[in-house]
Amino acid sequence: MDTSPAASFPVRRVTASGAEDTRDMLAVEEPLEIRLVSGEGSARSNKPVSVTMRTPGHDEELAVGFLFTEGIVTGSDEVLSVQAGADPQGNSVVVELDPKAAPALQGLERNFYTTSSCGVCGKASVDAVRVKSRYNAGDSQLKVASAMLNELQGKLRGHQKVFDVTGGLHASALFDSAGNLVMVREDVGRHNALDKLIGAALLQKKIPLSNHVLLLSGRISFELVQKASMAGIPLVAAIGAPSSLAVTLAEDGGMTLVGFLRENRYTVYCGQQRVVG
Amino acid sequence: MDTSPAASFPVRRVTASGAEDTRDMLAVEEPLEIRLVSGEGSARSNKPVSVTMRTPGHDEELAVGFLFTEGIVTGSDEVLSVQAGADPQGNSVVVELDPKAAPALQGLERNFYTTSSCGVCGKASVDAVRVKSRYNAGDSQLKVASAMLNELQGKLRGHQKVFDVTGGLHASALFDSAGNLVMVREDVGRHNALDKLIGAALLQKKIPLSNHVLLLSGRISFELVQKASMAGIPLVAAIGAPSSLAVTLAEDGGMTLVGFLRENRYTVYCGQQRVVG
Repeated sequence: MDTSPAASFPVRRVTASGAEDTRDMLAVEEPLEIRLVSGEGSARSNKPVSVTMRTPGHDEELAVGFLFTEGIVTGSDEVLSVQAGADPQGNSVVVELDPKAAPALQGLERNFYTTSSCGVCGKASVDAVRVKSRYNAGDSQLKVASAMLNELQGKLRGHQKVFDVTGGLHASALFDSAGNLVMVREDVGRHNALDKLIGAALLQKKIPLSNHVLLLSGRISFELVQKASMAGIPLVAAIGAPSSLAVTLAEDGGMTLVGFLRENRYTVYCGQQRVVG
Repeated sequence: MDTSPAASFPVRRVTASGAEDTRDMLAVEEPLEIRLVSGEGSARSNKPVSVTMRTPGHDEELAVGFLFTEGIVTGSDEVLSVQAGADPQGNSVVVELDPKAAPALQGLERNFYTTSSCGVCGKASVDAVRVKSRYNAGDSQLKVASAMLNELQGKLRGHQKVFDVTGGLHASALFDSAGNLVMVREDVGRHNALDKLIGAALLQKKIPLSNHVLLLSGRISFELVQKASMAGIPLVAAIGAPSSLAVTLAEDGGMTLVGFLRENRYTVYCGQQRVVG
């Protein structure tokens, strides 16, 4: 069982000065099976609920974060235990729920976009998140300094351990309102990096993250804002650009969305009352 | 019904010289429902098979490409018609199959990683692709010049129309063996950009693409190599890094994988016999 986040591969590197046979470190990608033990008495069952391609590491957090941001588990009080690596390959996590918990598994079987009466559209997708979310990020009184935002990218770069050796990972980072780094999670999948981070916060009983800032290393999709919204995060910043529906969802939820964040610039898409100075 | 790939949003842009309230173009992200009409006689049905978040445009190609790279549809001969935009929002595509076709829908309901006897691991994922794929990219006699590879990124940049105005899209580009650009597709989702491109090739009866080169604007995941493998593409190059399992899958399938491609450098991970000079 090898669960390293990076692995060495033979490569041929070609530059203007010639070719060299050497070795490179690559980000590891392996499937992770998430299993759920739930139900009461004789109806108690152990079922696989999802397989995701992920970078090994923080697998328990990933499993719990996924179940929470997808609306299947509503809080840490429902989680009795989380056990990774029970299988020989180290690619499985078992999450055991309180017998009284009623996990909303139909959300995985039936895609929620298609169940809205208004049909398939961005509006229905945004409405569905409002229904699923337990917290309202819009209620947060968080304020951050403009100069603090400009410093976040530099703070993240110093902590992207696996990215530094592979160049192949997405990162999600959590900061407090003063800009202090709380934690960083990395993964080949950007949704996994965020699920690991939110899962860690859940296991540490820090949800909702209503006084925190989330920084994403890449672009901002609808799915990432949805996950942040489920965790009650009021401000999402990213090095890259947001999509149209990411902005619509953030605005609908009273969140602040910041893109193209650099040392000397950024763009605010909504919720700019939280950025001062 | 608005199906533009980019949309204008109000933003506040903050730089060292001050803040400016202006407008920015963002990449549009909207759900697309893919429906399949299949079966014979009274068993003929019209069912939704997937909803994906995508950038509008080339929706018919996306639907057909998705069905083909997931192994549900085996070739263009099975496709009777493809109709986008039948719904008021323009977010639905109906693919009508020949009554004799037997679409492998169980692949969507039951995740293939978990059905292998060897358990959940990268090896099982790689084996599953070999079973599903109709073409063997390893049989391709394609050879490309090293100098030609270095020119690909520049050729792609000139054709990323929506990326140029939004900074928020992934691109997939197809080149012939001499480095001539055949086509480019863009999307907020990297898997969608590739499905659009492979779907276009399928509708143009160009599959297998055994004498072509695929260029990806970002990183190379297992899923992207899987899709290229299904289309018989022998050489995949990317601006970014591959994951470990992307390399393992490419090597298993006799493909050539090139990463970190720039004007003056690149790295070959496997299949270097196809790169000459």
